[in-house]
Amino acid sequence: MADPRFFDNHGPLTIDAIEALVGAVRKGPSTAGAITDVASLETAGPGHLSFCERANLKATLAASRASAVLVTDAVAGLVPGGATCLVSRAPALAFAKVAAALYPDAGTLWSRDHPPATAIDPSASIGEGTVIAPGAFVGPGVEIGRGATIAPGAVIGRGVRIGDGTRIGPLVTLSHAIIGNRVTIHGGTAIGQDGFGYIGSAAGHYKIPQLGRVLIHDDVEIGANTTIDRGALGDTDIGMGTKIDNLCQIGHNTRLGRHCVLAGQVGLSGSVTLGDFVVLGGQVAVSDHVTIGTGARVAGRSGVTRDLEAGKTYGGFPAMPIGAWRREVVILARLAARRLRDPEREAPPD
Amino acid sequence: MADPRFFDNHGPLTIDAIEALVGAVRKGPSTAGAITDVASLETAGPGHLSFCERANLKATLAASRASAVLVTDAVAGLVPGGATCLVSRAPALAFAKVAAALYPDAGTLWSRDHPPATAIDPSASIGEGTVIAPGAFVGPGVEIGRGATIAPGAVIGRGVRIGDGTRIGPLVTLSHAIIGNRVTIHGGTAIGQDGFGYIGSAAGHYKIPQLGRVLIHDDVEIGANTTIDRGALGDTDIGMGTKIDNLCQIGHNTRLGRHCVLAGQVGLSGSVTLGDFVVLGGQVAVSDHVTIGTGARVAGRSGVTRDLEAGKTYGGFPAMPIGAWRREVVILARLAARRLRDPEREAPPD
Amino acid sequence: MADPRFFDNHGPLTIDAIEALVGAVRKGPSTAGAITDVASLETAGPGHLSFCERANLKATLAASRASAVLVTDAVAGLVPGGATCLVSRAPALAFAKVAAALYPDAGTLWSRDHPPATAIDPSASIGEGTVIAPGAFVGPGVEIGRGATIAPGAVIGRGVRIGDGTRIGPLVTLSHAIIGNRVTIHGGTAIGQDGFGYIGSAAGHYKIPQLGRVLIHDDVEIGANTTIDRGALGDTDIGMGTKIDNLCQIGHNTRLGRHCVLAGQVGLSGSVTLGDFVVLGGQVAVSDHVTIGTGARVAGRSGVTRDLEAGKTYGGFPAMPIGAWRREVVILARLAARRLRDPEREAPPD
Repeated sequence: MADPRFFDNHGPLTIDAIEALVGAVRKGPSTAGAITDVASLETAGPGHLSFCERANLKATLAASRASAVLVTDAVAGLVPGGATCLVSRAPALAFAKVAAALYPDAGTLWSRDHPPATAIDPSASIGEGTVIAPGAFVGPGVEIGRGATIAPGAVIGRGVRIGDGTRIGPLVTLSHAIIGNRVTIHGGTAIGQDGFGYIGSAAGHYKIPQLGRVLIHDDVEIGANTTIDRGALGDTDIGMGTKIDNLCQIGHNTRLGRHCVLAGQVGLSGSVTLGDFVVLGGQVAVSDHVTIGTGARVAGRSGVTRDLEAGKTYGGFPAMPIGAWRREVVILARLAARRLRDPEREAPPD
Repeated sequence: MADPRFFDNHGPLTIDAIEALVGAVRKGPSTAGAITDVASLETAGPGHLSFCERANLKATLAASRASAVLVTDAVAGLVPGGATCLVSRAPALAFAKVAAALYPDAGTLWSRDHPPATAIDPSASIGEGTVIAPGAFVGPGVEIGRGATIAPGAVIGRGVRIGDGTRIGPLVTLSHAIIGNRVTIHGGTAIGQDGFGYIGSAAGHYKIPQLGRVLIHDDVEIGANTTIDRGALGDTDIGMGTKIDNLCQIGHNTRLGRHCVLAGQVGLSGSVTLGDFVVLGGQVAVSDHVTIGTGARVAGRSGVTRDLEAGKTYGGFPAMPIGAWRREVVILARLAARRLRDPEREAPPD
Repeated sequence: MADPRFFDNHGPLTIDAIEALVGAVRKGPSTAGAITDVASLETAGPGHLSFCERANLKATLAASRASAVLVTDAVAGLVPGGATCLVSRAPALAFAKVAAALYPDAGTLWSRDHPPATAIDPSASIGEGTVIAPGAFVGPGVEIGRGATIAPGAVIGRGVRIGDGTRIGPLVTLSHAIIGNRVTIHGGTAIGQDGFGYIGSAAGHYKIPQLGRVLIHDDVEIGANTTIDRGALGDTDIGMGTKIDNLCQIGHNTRLGRHCVLAGQVGLSGSVTLGDFVVLGGQVAVSDHVTIGTGARVAGRSGVTRDLEAGKTYGGFPAMPIGAWRREVVILARLAARRLRDPEREAPPD
């Protein structure tokens, strides 16, 4: 599933090799041949390994088209008949280890066998009228459209695609990314690096290989020193016309709709979903896996911990309808002021 | 008005051309010749186009010296006799489109006709004793004083001025900026990029060309990976001796006084004004157009939504006098603790 | 005390010279010869100058092995017999001025006499199998282990050490730092710059020379556009296996234990101490000199102002046990909702 423009697949791996690598045990018949890739339960197909660690994914597991699935013993019975069942005490960790074996260079900007040798790789394709400033770095297989500008010190990693009329600012890092037309990215922004995904244990934190991409659609503008991580298995996706201010953090697998506006220092955790025309004020934070509906607006400094409805305005932490938040602010101020007027009383009466 | 060291004016434009470009309609006599520039109502002079969209700017409109003004029909009667009145349903959007026509390259770091060809442009002037490290980029028309240091990978855009003894750190971006003497800017900071200004509609967000500058006065120190946007029509201005920590965001047209201290991750929206010796704790946020008086201090993580008085200390969100905020914290803790002691009671009595 | 790989000591200074430089006055006999270095009261030894400005450091002062100590007159009597006592109205400011005289180049990335001349300094030592990409800068005396990767545009300052298998991302700045094995640092992160330390007065803010280092131990991963300041007199220290997300700010002299997890946009002030396996949610802020015990967890957006116990979970601002914070959230929502149901009542009864 990993895009070969960005990732080198060192597979396939046999089921035997996987058992040995991660200490999993086959249960029932093995119908799978060699494993060529890793994928989520939903997106897996023939030749793919997937995993299931949580009981609430039972239906997803039963419907998966994966050729092999790493599971705990508790859900082993739900593995579809056509798939090889591999039982592990820690399926997610085992899956991450297989992913790392298939993609040992997932954490570097280049293929192990082809370290960068020149500032502008001769295999890069650069459209008519595009200006690449001195000091920029353009990796192998990069494709840049017409009339684009790449400012000094920008670093464009292997395989990245950049559309027509797009402006990449100074000292921008782009990797594992497909960038549309007329996109503007300001200085110092870092796009496409590893997402922040680990499997923790008493021994420390094991990195989950990040095998996805960043998709940035037409007419997006991204401010300075912002960060957008690439997806873990799927993509991080920034919809057409969306505007992101400086110093924002966009976590892996987050999906922004069209024409959203994110003010400065906004932070989105992983797997956040925003509809179209969502507006987030400065320093807003959104917890992982939260969905915010189309046209919703969130006041600055709010912390969004649950899904928000389309078209409404929210504020506070945890974020609530803006009117409720304003009432809380007023109520609290009155309680504190009353204490000031009557200092003998420590608190409202019981 | 836009500084020709940083911006190329492709004007003038006739009133007829402006009407055709933005769909505005002349009302009354036209006394203006060609329009050479755009400016705010307050700063406009002969040859300049301005706009007025809000009824609360009536007095400013009536006093403007602009040669032409884009207005809604509702305020057309207030356009001064000497100015050409151009009626538009969306004057701000029309104004932005004229600005973009006058300055089509406002969003790039170089003049369309002179893309960068060498790392150190031969037209740059570099003072005695100044060290420019390998890998730095210095654009055309840059002037650097004596005894300055430009670290590896710093990118200095066209026309930037840097004073004596100033230290520009590694991988810093400077554009559209006038930097004083003995200034220190740490690694990765981005200064002078476009402010975050758009005119929104159901079709998306139209970028307002950012035609101002960043002024940084003597003895300022700016931390790492901080961002300072240039002004939209005026300047962003950082006063003498002010110290700004890492990862701060300074919005366009913000003005900081002398000897302010901004701790890490502070965020200032656009058009914020700080007096002298203002101290902002870590992660403080300030809403747009807010003024904070000289010597005011704001506790970390506060959110400032209204003007603050000089010399006082504030905290909380929305920011209030520090004593009031502390009382709120105490009152709320007591209410929650009482509920703990008496779990049958859900809330204080009615 | 300052590591000579990173700092050039221009001393020694005689006691007479120090008196003249900072306007201090010797009290009692002078037993010290020339001063060769500056240090804190705790770490100072023969030849070192230290200072004491706060009365609550009396015991530390009495036990110091410094050869000379700058003090206010009020604590002059506590200076140990073997040390020269130098009385000043502003000992910290005087100390900072002596430090600046001993290390006049503390604020630059290179020795005054050896400005950088080439992208890869010939004195750098680079291990077998290490790849240094085009556009990277490697300063004098740098030592890089085996199998490391240095991405395009990375800037490695003088004397930095990088271990085996470590990956330095694009446009990373490293200075004054010792980096372990198998460390990953993502694009745009700035490590080792000056901490944010000043001595304020009505005349402005005097920079305290930052003479420490950053130590990053094995298996640490650091996200994109994060900032880690070096210590003032000691070191900033990131423990083995700790993972830090994007856009985090780590202040000077902060010490993180092993296997901590810091989510995006966390901000740690100076001299913060974290035990092992501490988890901080996104946008958490921690005040200076706070200690957080091993295994403690802090919910996103919390503000930690006091020490937290090991093994417990906290939330809110100021941070409190997570249950107390949740009760506060519930209580406040109920108070506001009640007002909504009964709009005639402005607040709970007196």
